[in-house]
Amino acid sequence: MANIKEIARIAGVSVTTVSRVLNNHPYVSESKRATVLQTIEQLHYARNMNAVHLSTGRTGTVAVILPYINLFYFSVVMDGLAHEALLAQYRLILCQSNYAPDEELKVLEMLRNKEIDGVVVVSTALLPEVIEEYMEYGPVVTCQDNGERRFSSVYIEHYAAFRHGLEYLKDKGYRKIGYCEGRQNGSSASIRQTAFQAFLAEHQLPFRQEWMVFDCMTEESGAAVARSLLPMEERPEVFMVTGDHVAAGLIIEARKHGLRIPEDIAVLGFDNQPIGRLLEISTIDNHLYDMGAAAFRIIHEQIRTGNRQPVYRKLDYEIIERGTV
Amino acid sequence: MANIKEIARIAGVSVTTVSRVLNNHPYVSESKRATVLQTIEQLHYARNMNAVHLSTGRTGTVAVILPYINLFYFSVVMDGLAHEALLAQYRLILCQSNYAPDEELKVLEMLRNKEIDGVVVVSTALLPEVIEEYMEYGPVVTCQDNGERRFSSVYIEHYAAFRHGLEYLKDKGYRKIGYCEGRQNGSSASIRQTAFQAFLAEHQLPFRQEWMVFDCMTEESGAAVARSLLPMEERPEVFMVTGDHVAAGLIIEARKHGLRIPEDIAVLGFDNQPIGRLLEISTIDNHLYDMGAAAFRIIHEQIRTGNRQPVYRKLDYEIIERGTV
Repeated sequence: MANIKEIARIAGVSVTTVSRVLNNHPYVSESKRATVLQTIEQLHYARNMNAVHLSTGRTGTVAVILPYINLFYFSVVMDGLAHEALLAQYRLILCQSNYAPDEELKVLEMLRNKEIDGVVVVSTALLPEVIEEYMEYGPVVTCQDNGERRFSSVYIEHYAAFRHGLEYLKDKGYRKIGYCEGRQNGSSASIRQTAFQAFLAEHQLPFRQEWMVFDCMTEESGAAVARSLLPMEERPEVFMVTGDHVAAGLIIEARKHGLRIPEDIAVLGFDNQPIGRLLEISTIDNHLYDMGAAAFRIIHEQIRTGNRQPVYRKLDYEIIERGTV
Repeated sequence: MANIKEIARIAGVSVTTVSRVLNNHPYVSESKRATVLQTIEQLHYARNMNAVHLSTGRTGTVAVILPYINLFYFSVVMDGLAHEALLAQYRLILCQSNYAPDEELKVLEMLRNKEIDGVVVVSTALLPEVIEEYMEYGPVVTCQDNGERRFSSVYIEHYAAFRHGLEYLKDKGYRKIGYCEGRQNGSSASIRQTAFQAFLAEHQLPFRQEWMVFDCMTEESGAAVARSLLPMEERPEVFMVTGDHVAAGLIIEARKHGLRIPEDIAVLGFDNQPIGRLLEISTIDNHLYDMGAAAFRIIHEQIRTGNRQPVYRKLDYEIIERGTV
């Protein structure tokens, strides 16, 4: 690799001299400067795109922050992002953060350091106030509803969507409603919890702690919810499950134990995943691919035009009726 | 954003002057040069990591080529890669190529241009000969068995693994064996086809074109295979399916039509996916997370040490016996 040492060796000068040439230091003889520059040229160093980026002020790169690439929700959003990035000839840096705030901050620091042209925050542990501090360094688009923040967002109205699902269940005659959620403290999860409890209170529907289950991220966690039903004295009639793969786990395991779907336990999923289509799971489709695609198009437009006026793009959602409600 | 125009405006000099300073051009007065450099400093331009990379010769970035992030196989490999990259404080550029060779070549060109320190090729449309041409520019690790190439690889012995599965089915008494494959012309797929046909010939097992189905990438394509069984005069007794999500589609749809698993149709899946665990699908586990993790560790070691001796890491595989064979 053409690094400073190699350039110095081939040009027959000291590392200090190469460093001085690279740093525009005046105390270098013109002949040495010429030799160093010629060597750099030979070593493709001059074609180094990092140097090109320095002169254009753009890197052709956008970073994406998300917690886990191997969850359906995030891999679909990433699919939408990556598809649009390819069309725009942009590169994506993927930061799979596991919700570690310091890792997420590092990506925002890359924006400050001009290593990237923008950041798409699909889901984050950082507060919006922290993200806002980086707005002066380049465009940021989030996939969360952050209200009227200075940065753009492409988002689902989680409150309205969740409430819509609850209305649907109530209209179907369900009164005992359970709820399986992912990360308890996630920003979307918090909104849904509020919607859930407000709706139950408003309609005087029963609430039981054991009908509300958190950390449901996997198929297996759905299966565990099904098993938890068995010894329960009073069971919910239906579960809202924020992920069709978790709903699939719940349904398959419930059937193994002789529970009928939807007669003994009904299930309303989220995300319209392929496994949900196969198992005919009723679901709320929130257009995740479109979320990724729209987020990239917005950030690309802001990079291209320099316009930083925030864009708020609200995505549609819809209930897909199948056999589990 | 601090680009040349902005620097020129703030420093009160022409764009040409800024450009001359950045390019080490001699015809700039020392006072102007000093002003420009000071302005750059103020604008954080001096902290630009691109400039840092120029001086260290490393970018802290590795690119990953894969066709579709939203397929279980690839999202798990990416999970392993991303987890190790985080530990090593490395960034990953994701190229979701859809198997477009020109997009994949662009990533290898980034290696030549020193924009990245290495490339992990999870799956590619490019010939190994093409990849080999880029070896001189930096380390490349593939997740395919490329034989004794000059670049490193972390791979499953697809021939042996597939044959192992076939032996297992034959020992169980199956004679009519079907096969659902993804991309017909994929390098691993080609190896499996060869293994399949050689095994059938060797053991004088029946072969029928309609028992070998390609382009099985999704749950729905598995369901279509199940439906194709219904009018078939002579059905296979078992299908080997190169993905548990496709096997899940086959099994769920087959059951809808009253076929019993494994009595009427047995299924051996691949990848040990969560949906396979739920549906108790017998499968061949080929340790995909480990593949990604090992690929990153190898490339990181090669970047760190400069050692380019190729490393060939063969991964284990194992049959997990469940209820569908």
